[in-house]
Amino acid sequence: MCEANAYLVKDGEESLIMESVDIVQPEEGGTWRLVSIFGEQKNVKARIKEMNLVNHRILFEEDAG
Amino acid sequence: MCEANAYLVKDGEESLIMESVDIVQPEEGGTWRLVSIFGEQKNVKARIKEMNLVNHRILFEEDAG
Repeated sequence: MCEANAYLVKDGEESLIMESVDIVQPEEGGTWRLVSIFGEQKNVKARIKEMNLVNHRILFEEDAG
Repeated sequence: MCEANAYLVKDGEESLIMESVDIVQPEEGGTWRLVSIFGEQKNVKARIKEMNLVNHRILFEEDAG
């Protein structure tokens, strides 16, 4: 399976938002909807900082604005 | 390997932007930098419409604004 883990980067530290993310979709207001392979859903108000698919990592960072 | 293919959706049709994308990173001015597992790089001025990692698909759409 090729899902990825989503992390929030803050002050140089990564905290796990969700494991095994399958779907990433933009919502209104600078929010991203994450859906895991288990059907779990979460909305994250943050910017995408980087995605590294081979390493199964999606990094978000809080919007400075 | 867990790379994905990136497509641009326009008028309901998908055209392939890049195969085997590893890295997706935001750049300035609403542009995304794509890097494939082969080291190929491409900049795409578009919005992310949806990512489906299990299906290895990243969909972009042109910014309406």
